[in-house]
Amino acid sequence: MSVEKMDKKKTLDLRKKHIGPSCKIFFSHDPIKIVQAKGQYMYDENGQRYLDCINNVAHVGHSHPDVVKAGAQQMELLNTNSRFLHDNLVLYAQRLQATLPNKLSVCYFVNSGSEANDLALRLVRQYRGHKDIITLENAYHGHVSSLIDISPYKFHQLSDAEQNQSVHVAPSPDVYRGKYRANHPDPATAYADDVKGIIDKAHEKGGKIAAFIAESLQSCGGQVIPPVGYFQQVAKHVRKAGGLFIADEVQVGFGRVGSKFWAFQLQGEDFVPDIVTMGKPIGNGHPMSCVVTTKEVAEAFMTSGMEYFNTFGGNPVSCAIGLAVLDVIEKEDLQGNALRVGGYLTNLLEKQKEKHALVGDIRGCGLFVGMELVRDRLKLTPATAEAQEVIYKLKEQHILLSADGPHRNVLKFKPPMCFSTEDADLVVEKIDHILTEIEAALGLKSSNLLSVENDSGKRKLPTDENGHQSQNGSVHSRGSGQRAHEQTKQSKRLRS
Amino acid sequence: MSVEKMDKKKTLDLRKKHIGPSCKIFFSHDPIKIVQAKGQYMYDENGQRYLDCINNVAHVGHSHPDVVKAGAQQMELLNTNSRFLHDNLVLYAQRLQATLPNKLSVCYFVNSGSEANDLALRLVRQYRGHKDIITLENAYHGHVSSLIDISPYKFHQLSDAEQNQSVHVAPSPDVYRGKYRANHPDPATAYADDVKGIIDKAHEKGGKIAAFIAESLQSCGGQVIPPVGYFQQVAKHVRKAGGLFIADEVQVGFGRVGSKFWAFQLQGEDFVPDIVTMGKPIGNGHPMSCVVTTKEVAEAFMTSGMEYFNTFGGNPVSCAIGLAVLDVIEKEDLQGNALRVGGYLTNLLEKQKEKHALVGDIRGCGLFVGMELVRDRLKLTPATAEAQEVIYKLKEQHILLSADGPHRNVLKFKPPMCFSTEDADLVVEKIDHILTEIEAALGLKSSNLLSVENDSGKRKLPTDENGHQSQNGSVHSRGSGQRAHEQTKQSKRLRS
Repeated sequence: MSVEKMDKKKTLDLRKKHIGPSCKIFFSHDPIKIVQAKGQYMYDENGQRYLDCINNVAHVGHSHPDVVKAGAQQMELLNTNSRFLHDNLVLYAQRLQATLPNKLSVCYFVNSGSEANDLALRLVRQYRGHKDIITLENAYHGHVSSLIDISPYKFHQLSDAEQNQSVHVAPSPDVYRGKYRANHPDPATAYADDVKGIIDKAHEKGGKIAAFIAESLQSCGGQVIPPVGYFQQVAKHVRKAGGLFIADEVQVGFGRVGSKFWAFQLQGEDFVPDIVTMGKPIGNGHPMSCVVTTKEVAEAFMTSGMEYFNTFGGNPVSCAIGLAVLDVIEKEDLQGNALRVGGYLTNLLEKQKEKHALVGDIRGCGLFVGMELVRDRLKLTPATAEAQEVIYKLKEQHILLSADGPHRNVLKFKPPMCFSTEDADLVVEKIDHILTEIEAALGLKSSNLLSVENDSGKRKLPTDENGHQSQNGSVHSRGSGQRAHEQTKQSKRLRS
Repeated sequence: MSVEKMDKKKTLDLRKKHIGPSCKIFFSHDPIKIVQAKGQYMYDENGQRYLDCINNVAHVGHSHPDVVKAGAQQMELLNTNSRFLHDNLVLYAQRLQATLPNKLSVCYFVNSGSEANDLALRLVRQYRGHKDIITLENAYHGHVSSLIDISPYKFHQLSDAEQNQSVHVAPSPDVYRGKYRANHPDPATAYADDVKGIIDKAHEKGGKIAAFIAESLQSCGGQVIPPVGYFQQVAKHVRKAGGLFIADEVQVGFGRVGSKFWAFQLQGEDFVPDIVTMGKPIGNGHPMSCVVTTKEVAEAFMTSGMEYFNTFGGNPVSCAIGLAVLDVIEKEDLQGNALRVGGYLTNLLEKQKEKHALVGDIRGCGLFVGMELVRDRLKLTPATAEAQEVIYKLKEQHILLSADGPHRNVLKFKPPMCFSTEDADLVVEKIDHILTEIEAALGLKSSNLLSVENDSGKRKLPTDENGHQSQNGSVHSRGSGQRAHEQTKQSKRLRS
């Protein structure tokens, strides 16, 4: 293809010479050179097509023409900072606000999810002068200094990890592998009570809680879906301590979860965070992000006397692109597509779970789905190497998938939102073959089937909101928050 | 103009409702709505043209067609993350590297000057495990938490400012208003010795120096130009303590200083920082930035075991835009233009200093020029209100200028690099009229003329490298680093 400017070896050599080595490249022993992309497909320098199951940044599809056009047209006219009045800034803020609960009405536009979460920390620390932050186990909130401190996913990688004294780590509300599991009578309350315990301990040491921060659904942490009611109870405890609730929607916002526009809304309409941070999908790849908060929090921040100015944040081009992304989501009903195709994909994966001993859990909402591989369904021994093998074999067959979670054994699906049922069929068919091969080679199947049966024996299958039998007990919310809530209560009942 | 989508009042109302109030708008009692811009001109909703003397982000001119085209074409093809190989990333890194000393060979692409400086802090702190940072008085390095700590310009705004224990503030090397002035025999050594003193004190308290960070020329700090030789001596002291030197070029890089591509190069060819951070002009408004460092620092960062990945950083669109910006600088000889027009502007402003008692100092390099207003040339009483008046009156005449520095009395010129001598004539003519009016109203002129004369009597005018008499004794470097060095030595001699 003419869009290639040098051969792959030369690209790789120059990269080794001039690009910081701390950024891992996909498939580092044989990396992919991508020169073009459209929708949910990427193309390498030889024109080979790859099905993209992982790029949640290219939210409305790679190089969507409407988004490209909006960006190009605005670039031609004007791109300047927000110290001047501009309609795009306020129109976009208004439009974004309309997707959120009323009280979340004030926007700060910044350039990355990291800048958004860092600003959120500044907002909560200014609010009442409290400093302590409660974060979740395996959480990842960004790459700037302040966020490494609140990202166990990152700071545990450090050889000389030293946890910041004002940061407290609560258990991940993971009902599959976490402290309280599906067989617990009320994991939401149990996990929230742990947060309460952390607050009490912090108070004993003289700490004051500024905020609890969590991704509405943990992404790098292993596609973890918190039990419904957890956020409400945590918010109650945190607010009682004078703190605020930050919902990090950087990975999962903008309709990805299908039944709702924001993932925190899966917890029910009675839950409203004090701050929502956004990023990745917001500009379909254009660097932009946003913090939305309440008037009270914004006013408290202003009383600090310190100005907040962001050179690029909220520029007319970013806002034009942001508006185009919202238009496409609506026009192409991508949230609806996420709900439908996500449901379809989850069902296919559930069938894989019935068939393959290596599949421990399927959990997801819309087009945010995790498939956790284990060597033993009772001990939950992570099948890390097997997950890597799936990823590599899929790549050979031109499908891009990745594995994450603390044990790197969760296959994660977060494709562009135009992903189709045919795409789902294709990737699951390939996974089926690969798992069959791996299991045959390992002789795993027979020994694990017993565990599978034991496991199945303990669970009864809940029905979804349409009365169809669902294949899993995890929180796969297909309907409204209320339905999700009922479904989860039902799951809990059936699992216990 | 059709590009306006609502009337100005409505824009302002929506902004009040939905945009964080901590961002000050220009001319807040009567803000400007800009809908279009081209080159060094901006246009409001009524088609009124404004001459832009301040937007150093629109480096090669607002909405430059080559930059727009490069961005639009790449957006159409592909915009994805740097975990895939892409030619734009490595070509841009290679091209950027070619503008720098050889040992600065490894790039990290990020999204804003703030992300760049934060990453620089992470690099230096990882390098030897040292934590202490030495920063300059009035410095501004960005808006994320870690940078507020090292930005006295910001943290002094806080009512409850509490200086981080590992941050040390050195005197600003300001030879006009600072601790050691033009009449000091060797201000470079004196200011560097102060840094040495800070290191010694930090060591006494058990601190270990990770880095010294400075803008190559202080911008928000008041367009301060450090005496030549200062950085070399500071670097020697800091490296002896195991620390690194970070040159922050976010405001002043990419040819703005005229005689050099990077402002740190004004110190002479014997000075090479360990890390250079870049931002604002790099993408002509597109959110991007970069950290460049040595192989040794990059390798030390990798040994921490922590990956560094930046979702948007170094994407193919940003890199295409970055390449186009470099092309335009070269093709249109904008660095040469900065040298020529900057010199012309500085000479015009020097004439204003001869004429107006309110003008205390003119200092600049290329198209980065400061005009400091004082009520008394001996006491250097800042003429803050007068500076504001100049700014506001210029705005009435459709010229955009701003005032900065710790006393907000330095008129700062940092226009798009296509600024012309006609533009310089226009703005200086207007300033002349405004200063005449202000001085007449205040009756300042006669009383201050005495100070002016005293001041002039003490100074002899140095000649520039072409033998022409220069109008100021400040470091206005028109030639090579060596020439700048000689000129400064000469200035020092003549001033003392």
